[in-house]
Amino acid sequence: MTVPTLFGGIEAGGTKFICIIASDPDHILEQTRIPTTTPEETLGKTMEFFQPFVSSRQISALGIGCFGPLDLNPASSTYGHITNTPKPGWKYTDVHGILQRALNVRVAFDMDVNSAALGEYTWGANQGCDPSLYITVGTGIGGGYVVNGKPLIGLLNLEMGHLRIPHDTQLDPFPGNCPFHGDCLEGLASGPAIQGRFGSRGESLPDDHPFWEVEAGYIASSLVNFILTLSPKKIVIGGGVMGRAFLFPMVRRKVQELLQDYVVHPFLLQDIEHYIVPPALGNLSGSLGAIALAQMAE
Amino acid sequence: MTVPTLFGGIEAGGTKFICIIASDPDHILEQTRIPTTTPEETLGKTMEFFQPFVSSRQISALGIGCFGPLDLNPASSTYGHITNTPKPGWKYTDVHGILQRALNVRVAFDMDVNSAALGEYTWGANQGCDPSLYITVGTGIGGGYVVNGKPLIGLLNLEMGHLRIPHDTQLDPFPGNCPFHGDCLEGLASGPAIQGRFGSRGESLPDDHPFWEVEAGYIASSLVNFILTLSPKKIVIGGGVMGRAFLFPMVRRKVQELLQDYVVHPFLLQDIEHYIVPPALGNLSGSLGAIALAQMAE
Repeated sequence: MTVPTLFGGIEAGGTKFICIIASDPDHILEQTRIPTTTPEETLGKTMEFFQPFVSSRQISALGIGCFGPLDLNPASSTYGHITNTPKPGWKYTDVHGILQRALNVRVAFDMDVNSAALGEYTWGANQGCDPSLYITVGTGIGGGYVVNGKPLIGLLNLEMGHLRIPHDTQLDPFPGNCPFHGDCLEGLASGPAIQGRFGSRGESLPDDHPFWEVEAGYIASSLVNFILTLSPKKIVIGGGVMGRAFLFPMVRRKVQELLQDYVVHPFLLQDIEHYIVPPALGNLSGSLGAIALAQMAE
Repeated sequence: MTVPTLFGGIEAGGTKFICIIASDPDHILEQTRIPTTTPEETLGKTMEFFQPFVSSRQISALGIGCFGPLDLNPASSTYGHITNTPKPGWKYTDVHGILQRALNVRVAFDMDVNSAALGEYTWGANQGCDPSLYITVGTGIGGGYVVNGKPLIGLLNLEMGHLRIPHDTQLDPFPGNCPFHGDCLEGLASGPAIQGRFGSRGESLPDDHPFWEVEAGYIASSLVNFILTLSPKKIVIGGGVMGRAFLFPMVRRKVQELLQDYVVHPFLLQDIEHYIVPPALGNLSGSLGAIALAQMAE
């Protein structure tokens, strides 16, 4: 029996770093969670976690799916940095360079949503689906799109969270809380936007609160736009807000209502519960995706 | 000197078929326009145009960029048909099969917007830009997206015209005229939607009519969503409505206003007049794109 090659994987998020040593979902040797505090502390603990596996030559490469905005232009002097983040202390942190120099291994680096999209495409719910889409609805909203086997990067990193969608101010007078665009998708439907309306975290709203219909409508509006524009063969939605599982049937129904049978495909009609789905890798989409990133860079 | 191989190309539109014999924009041997009346008459005249070039063996392959909706699934029994079109007489017309059997040549078949996108990518304004986007704003609104050198087809053909965008009903009380979605992009901003507001064709509205600001706003909203989702390296906008050249600077300015410097790239700031542009192939984007389609199928 051959032993599969191990890699290091990091989902570097705004609240926690999930670090794993694995070759695939069935071979996870070790994992840990490190709270995202200061870059010094968090990156320091991250190095401590990986160092023994590097020293013992169990891993020789690391994948990182990182919160953004990021500089992903290899020709840039700030390649691999988190750039203009509002997160205190993290502006212009050279996540790629600091970990690469400390551990002295190859490092593959991409956006957190691209990493999660790649994880779900490689081993999760989007397996075999090209093109496919991964959306997260949580503290922020973002998406990764896998086409021809890899996450799409065009002129810029994708910023699907800032999509412009209809906002019925009679139904929902909340002006939105995106500091850039007010009532873009993220400004209306992220976790902090829900909190902005109710003065408490969205997870404390009861399942039968009428706001969930509004929330599902915003998510459905964005999915309709993604279907019309990106035409994914499957859509995975992760993130904290979608932890409320009852949102899935609501979102699916609203997608069908909004499409009005203009776009006709069995996946969008009788099979929609297999078309818009939660992540199959649970909360490891991003960190396992980082393993896939490291493998692809081999 | 080698003589470049000639192909037949058709932009099969809802008002006219543009038919050409060419190898590229610098070698157009012959071209004609045939009004779109009944399938019998229009396809009959199309065959008559191409037959001599087939008989003399000047061409052995044909590309067609066709108005839709189309069945493009090769495994389907109605592959190559126009499907559920509202255009009288054309529902379930086997455009691909009829021309293939009559002319007995290889036929490459795709959506009109994909063909135009490919034409502009191969020889026009989007040359060297991968991914790139072609949008048409005219009788309908649609878009083609070239990624990894070919038009994207995912689960379905792209239907960007039916995008959901913000609609300020105070500013513009017109409810939209899309029979499926009311105030989607096409229902608000197509030529017939302009006519629906003013009882006359949009082209008769004076350049300084305040509606053009509203129109430019809808187009800009959709471009912002395309930039955030597809991240094209360049955007070409064609179609009858965009024949009003003064719309280009208005649309560019509104795109910048809507992005609010969240997405920062020189192409979107000082160079935006080279980022959002009219077609370089004029009204031959689609028919020359059909030549490119035929070449790709070689």
